[in-house]
Amino acid sequence: MAFKIGLLGLGTVGTGTAEIILNPAGRHSLLKEIAIHRVGVRSLDKPRGIQLPPQAMTTDLEAIVTDPEIDIVVELLGGLEPARSLILKAISAGKHVVTANKAAIARYGDEIYSAANAAGVYVLLEAAVGGGIPVIKPLKQSLGANRIASIIGIVNGTTNYILTQMTTAGADFDEVLAEAQKLGYAEADPTADVDGLDAADKIAILASLGFGGRVKRENVYCEGIRQVSAVDINYADKLGFVIKLLAIAKGSGGYESDTLQLRVHPTLIPKTHPLASINGVFNAILVEGDPLGQVMFFGPGAGAGPTASAVVSDIMNIVGILKSSGKTQFLDPLLTCTHQHYCTITPIEELETRFYARFLCRDIPGVIGHLGTCFGNHQVSLESVVQIGFQGELAEIVVVTHDVREGNFRQALQEIGCLEAIKTIPSILRVL
Amino acid sequence: MAFKIGLLGLGTVGTGTAEIILNPAGRHSLLKEIAIHRVGVRSLDKPRGIQLPPQAMTTDLEAIVTDPEIDIVVELLGGLEPARSLILKAISAGKHVVTANKAAIARYGDEIYSAANAAGVYVLLEAAVGGGIPVIKPLKQSLGANRIASIIGIVNGTTNYILTQMTTAGADFDEVLAEAQKLGYAEADPTADVDGLDAADKIAILASLGFGGRVKRENVYCEGIRQVSAVDINYADKLGFVIKLLAIAKGSGGYESDTLQLRVHPTLIPKTHPLASINGVFNAILVEGDPLGQVMFFGPGAGAGPTASAVVSDIMNIVGILKSSGKTQFLDPLLTCTHQHYCTITPIEELETRFYARFLCRDIPGVIGHLGTCFGNHQVSLESVVQIGFQGELAEIVVVTHDVREGNFRQALQEIGCLEAIKTIPSILRVL
Repeated sequence: MAFKIGLLGLGTVGTGTAEIILNPAGRHSLLKEIAIHRVGVRSLDKPRGIQLPPQAMTTDLEAIVTDPEIDIVVELLGGLEPARSLILKAISAGKHVVTANKAAIARYGDEIYSAANAAGVYVLLEAAVGGGIPVIKPLKQSLGANRIASIIGIVNGTTNYILTQMTTAGADFDEVLAEAQKLGYAEADPTADVDGLDAADKIAILASLGFGGRVKRENVYCEGIRQVSAVDINYADKLGFVIKLLAIAKGSGGYESDTLQLRVHPTLIPKTHPLASINGVFNAILVEGDPLGQVMFFGPGAGAGPTASAVVSDIMNIVGILKSSGKTQFLDPLLTCTHQHYCTITPIEELETRFYARFLCRDIPGVIGHLGTCFGNHQVSLESVVQIGFQGELAEIVVVTHDVREGNFRQALQEIGCLEAIKTIPSILRVL
Repeated sequence: MAFKIGLLGLGTVGTGTAEIILNPAGRHSLLKEIAIHRVGVRSLDKPRGIQLPPQAMTTDLEAIVTDPEIDIVVELLGGLEPARSLILKAISAGKHVVTANKAAIARYGDEIYSAANAAGVYVLLEAAVGGGIPVIKPLKQSLGANRIASIIGIVNGTTNYILTQMTTAGADFDEVLAEAQKLGYAEADPTADVDGLDAADKIAILASLGFGGRVKRENVYCEGIRQVSAVDINYADKLGFVIKLLAIAKGSGGYESDTLQLRVHPTLIPKTHPLASINGVFNAILVEGDPLGQVMFFGPGAGAGPTASAVVSDIMNIVGILKSSGKTQFLDPLLTCTHQHYCTITPIEELETRFYARFLCRDIPGVIGHLGTCFGNHQVSLESVVQIGFQGELAEIVVVTHDVREGNFRQALQEIGCLEAIKTIPSILRVL
């Protein structure tokens, strides 16, 4: 008897998922026990790259999530609605759910997991973060023995591609974005990627798993890469850094941490750091815990094949469980999401971090003294102050601080912005 | 009600494991339901770094594996016996087993998994490969949708430390080994590490999981790093390579591959390769599959804390299953090892690979022609021939080939070794 899948969506990832299930040779033998029963699409007329029996196809998505024959609903529609409603309906019909939908889980995870726990079904989401990289399951199943200290990821391939190109070609953001759009690495509307929203969805999910608490998506501090310039990438390079869009979660004491830092922003990272060499569309997630130390998961963070690999692994996981224990009476606590409390998120002003700032200045001889005084007034201790170049008659000065409270640093900057000697402050970036 | 553990062995990993279980705060809440019931040690008098109730300690290991109170036996004795017998006895007493014992699993995996499947118990072994890096579970549970093409790992921290030190310090093997022994990174008897035996155990295990067939440990081709010299590391560097001890499994078509390459040897890898930057005692495992592409798992490959993290994650896995389905009626096919057939291993002479060879030659003007002729006679096509230095009156020539059949290359070398112009062939290494 085969286990029956209802597939919602037959875009690139849906097609990739169907291709794997329809071609099990050379893959794990469990795949032979999985059958695609129904596929929900928007249009039946659209030509598809794969052969599915026409009677399996339907535009009635609701009929799929309530079909009594179906064991597992695979939601690959993306977006918030109707994905959320269909997931909830599938759950209340007693279906297990596999989804790649980071946006819906990051926003409605509490509602979805409460419903799933009440119904005794699994909602698995390996494909939601890191594409084909196994990271959700390892976090749930392999790292729980640790007090997780931090999860730091390059989890958006589009922005990593853009920053990598800016670094290697010395080109500016707009130029590289246009090229990435032409190559299909960036969407026509690149907002979700370049403004860090996609990465914020993903770190909200990872943080919730690693730190054992619910996370409100709107509490993730988020800066994108639009303001990163080739000039800063070049200066960062001279100072021994590369610039990456990092998604960061840091706890105050492992599982059920009292407070959590949760933030996405372009970051200077030392060239020797394991994440510094993750280039192009690749993703990597670095997890640090006690007693483990650091582990890193690296691979293709997007694309039909890798994402489908993750989707199918979740399907196989559920089938493995169904085969071994039938209709589960209780859920495996490592595979579901049982925490009820919401994590307290540290406000960004309270963050302690290093900063990089670039200033365009008149009056070169006096300005370093002024900068030093202003920073000193606000307890901002400087690691280096370098006059690094000229733009016309203006000198460019780059400052790197030691760890400072972000609120203090911002106050100092406000004061510095009013100095006669300072023309503008074109860049402010955090340093790992 | 707590789930009860019987711990066999209280060395560094055993102590690390007990420490995690005894200090659950800040870790996954499931840990609070796990209790150490009995601990088997060789001597009750030895002072221990942790507090365990004296009545839990015993020297009677057999009493632990048959104790009706115990749910999970954790074997951390290492070595082949009595580990193998105790694992088998635990299984026949209906206990689930967690082990870090790569040597026993690589050699007796077929016997152990046959017994476990018959008894309906799990034998988990995350700690056996890659220390704290989650790699066994991801291979079982997250990558099965793929046709695995290859698994390539740096899976021995001692040799990676030695090669890294040789590279950065330009020092020779014996010198660095002595230092590594002083620092505790190498054992007094370093054979298992430096001769590649430990890496061979590990790749046998990974290959069996990734390619879905049993593997006879004695079929793993194995060369260690004793013959790697600082001279070769230096020449490799000039040619754009680093030298790493790689454990390689390559299949001919994914799961249930007809034939499998299985080998451990020092290897020249391009500096741009993801494994090239894995230094010191760190481990990394690169898995390539379709449609996934490449994923890499990186982290601490040894040490009490990381290994204990993996051991406890396996314990938690089993407890999660026991909580959700009670005494399992059937085993989850993704978590056990169901394959019966043995993989056919390609003999090393049939391997197609690139080679690096260094020759000490008299008669410099004529020798390159002689080399070229001999290689040509055996269908060995050369990528580069470089006269790279002198040792006294002898010229050093380094040859890098294109992909060649190993048997042909060896025949050519035999012929070349007889040439008047060739003094010796100090190094022969494979190139990735």
